[in-house]
Amino acid sequence: MSIALDYAKRLISAPSVTPATGEVFDVMEAMLKPLGFDIHRFTRGDGEEGSDEAPVENLFAIRKGPEGSRHFAFAGHLDVVPPGDGWESDPFEPTTQGELLYGRGAVDMKSAIACMVAASHDIPADAGTISFIITGDEEGPALHGTRALIDYMRGQGIQPDLCLVGEPTSVNRLGDMMKIGRRGSVNIWLTVEGTQGHVAYPHLADNPIPKLVAMLKELDELMLDTGTDWFQPSNLEVTDIEVGNKAHNVIPAEARARISIRFNDLHSGHSLSERVAAIAENHGGRALPIISGEPFLTAPGAFSNMLAKAVEEETGVTPEASTTGGTSDARFLRSVCPVIEFGLCNATMHKRNEAVAIPDLDALARIYTKAALGAFTLKTTQEEA
Amino acid sequence: MSIALDYAKRLISAPSVTPATGEVFDVMEAMLKPLGFDIHRFTRGDGEEGSDEAPVENLFAIRKGPEGSRHFAFAGHLDVVPPGDGWESDPFEPTTQGELLYGRGAVDMKSAIACMVAASHDIPADAGTISFIITGDEEGPALHGTRALIDYMRGQGIQPDLCLVGEPTSVNRLGDMMKIGRRGSVNIWLTVEGTQGHVAYPHLADNPIPKLVAMLKELDELMLDTGTDWFQPSNLEVTDIEVGNKAHNVIPAEARARISIRFNDLHSGHSLSERVAAIAENHGGRALPIISGEPFLTAPGAFSNMLAKAVEEETGVTPEASTTGGTSDARFLRSVCPVIEFGLCNATMHKRNEAVAIPDLDALARIYTKAALGAFTLKTTQEEA
Repeated sequence: MSIALDYAKRLISAPSVTPATGEVFDVMEAMLKPLGFDIHRFTRGDGEEGSDEAPVENLFAIRKGPEGSRHFAFAGHLDVVPPGDGWESDPFEPTTQGELLYGRGAVDMKSAIACMVAASHDIPADAGTISFIITGDEEGPALHGTRALIDYMRGQGIQPDLCLVGEPTSVNRLGDMMKIGRRGSVNIWLTVEGTQGHVAYPHLADNPIPKLVAMLKELDELMLDTGTDWFQPSNLEVTDIEVGNKAHNVIPAEARARISIRFNDLHSGHSLSERVAAIAENHGGRALPIISGEPFLTAPGAFSNMLAKAVEEETGVTPEASTTGGTSDARFLRSVCPVIEFGLCNATMHKRNEAVAIPDLDALARIYTKAALGAFTLKTTQEEA
Repeated sequence: MSIALDYAKRLISAPSVTPATGEVFDVMEAMLKPLGFDIHRFTRGDGEEGSDEAPVENLFAIRKGPEGSRHFAFAGHLDVVPPGDGWESDPFEPTTQGELLYGRGAVDMKSAIACMVAASHDIPADAGTISFIITGDEEGPALHGTRALIDYMRGQGIQPDLCLVGEPTSVNRLGDMMKIGRRGSVNIWLTVEGTQGHVAYPHLADNPIPKLVAMLKELDELMLDTGTDWFQPSNLEVTDIEVGNKAHNVIPAEARARISIRFNDLHSGHSLSERVAAIAENHGGRALPIISGEPFLTAPGAFSNMLAKAVEEETGVTPEASTTGGTSDARFLRSVCPVIEFGLCNATMHKRNEAVAIPDLDALARIYTKAALGAFTLKTTQEEA
């Protein structure tokens, strides 16, 4: 059995529905320790189970290279989404069938972590510094996950030169896509207050709904941008409207809506929140934004070229440099150093019978090895090839 | 004690929260019988208590005048809205304090019925035909109330020449307003279906909200009319929007709204339903109308002039001929004969501590007497004075 497959099975065997603590980190520590890593584990959050403040475990592991050598960081998460029903095997009992390994986390993303641990065997300790930035909460509120790890690294004066996030970015086959950026995300709650009254006496009431409707129409018609070289156009969706007025003859006192904006690097969560708030106020309403993440872009250059070359050599496929999809912890890591995401095929992520093609594990371990070795020799991460 | 006050107390003493049956009708029958009325009582509806099909009692009473004499009908309801909490006296125990009589139904509208029964004492039996069209469900769904009474009258070949509805139309003092019409009312449920999806992949979804928003904006901006000589402009209110999507990152599959239109006699419930349906379909949605009532207008003329004169003689006040407010059972009676509504002051209707000024009772009884006598001599109800 390959080392990567063995590690993947060990990690899948430790149930770790988000937020994760304990056992799965014990397994991780036991794998890293013999490879010469210094390991720091810590738990944040003291709320009840199920709350946003529920305890989250994090692990930072570093194997320092010679003085002055470059630092390649690998980031990932050991928590998984709940398995749900309908599995053909126990989701926390790694099961192989033909060329497939089944289990929750098989692609998102315990196996990728396993591949990077396996890669660490093949990366000479004197070639450079490698580190693992591993959280137990990427799938949940992510309040005490990667952000806490970044705080820890800052406190320790640890500064990676670049970071590879092992999210499952491949689509149809291993290697066909890497993410050089992600859009930002902001949800904004909109409220218009009026004065309740009887529909037969509208002059005594102030219906908030027409104001909300006009506001939403203006927001829906906003053309935020036409996209950039690397991003599709920013998009605004009205995701909910709620009045909750059951009485047919009553003009309601309040109307609420929620919008979701996924935006590229022409905007920030703050700039969009300000813009929406101004429109809301023009229509007599107010806006409450919650920014989930700012966009990030690691513009194509030395880092992405090096990674693409590693992928091509191993798979024969040139990875598309994409910025599509949802958010990931790269939204936090972008503040530390250039970040690119590359990992397994994502077809079964978050689904029942999540499975990875076993041959992809060794291939990914070799890609990660090459990526680390390549990173050690890059003068800069951004220079044009 | 005046006869009208005595009758009002008797009716208030019989609890009759909508829909009403039994006791309150027994009281009514006992008052009318000695006055020479033929009385027909019947109950419709066989559903459970609280359902739209709960039993409703109705009473039709007629005292026929000489062959060929004219027929003055008085319409009203013996059911009352629930008293609610916070009364200073028992709502079903008529209580006098100074010049006020307290009790549920004191103005809406047991006292008006009492006044018309008192008036019957003073209307000579040979002067003309008088009748009572009394339902136990005006405040509820009204499916088996006045509509059933109209069916009964048609079956009996009974055709009033005009009808006075005793709803509390006065505002600040007895006599200041009569209703010569009411607007129609239609509620329309609007639905747009789309395709659910993730906000990060809007091209794979079809958000129904922008379509609903555009539809509602167009509907809200409709100018249905600018009013008529006797009606204020028709008015459309969006009364509810409901999406019910709790997931911030999900584009919902369906969006719903409800509008309420109060409309004058330039429209019908059907014409408006068709118009709204066309707009809904243009925006990819559909419309489901429920027409609560068509508008009615008894254009100012002989009937309203006669009634106004009776009011002026008794109160010194010239009643404004209005078409404002909600709907009433006049919406059904309009199909039978010309209808006007006139009754007590409505300031406390549907409120706790509902109360009528005791002197208004005898005054209203005298107005109703004059109205009946006046009706017997009218050649036509519509001729200009």
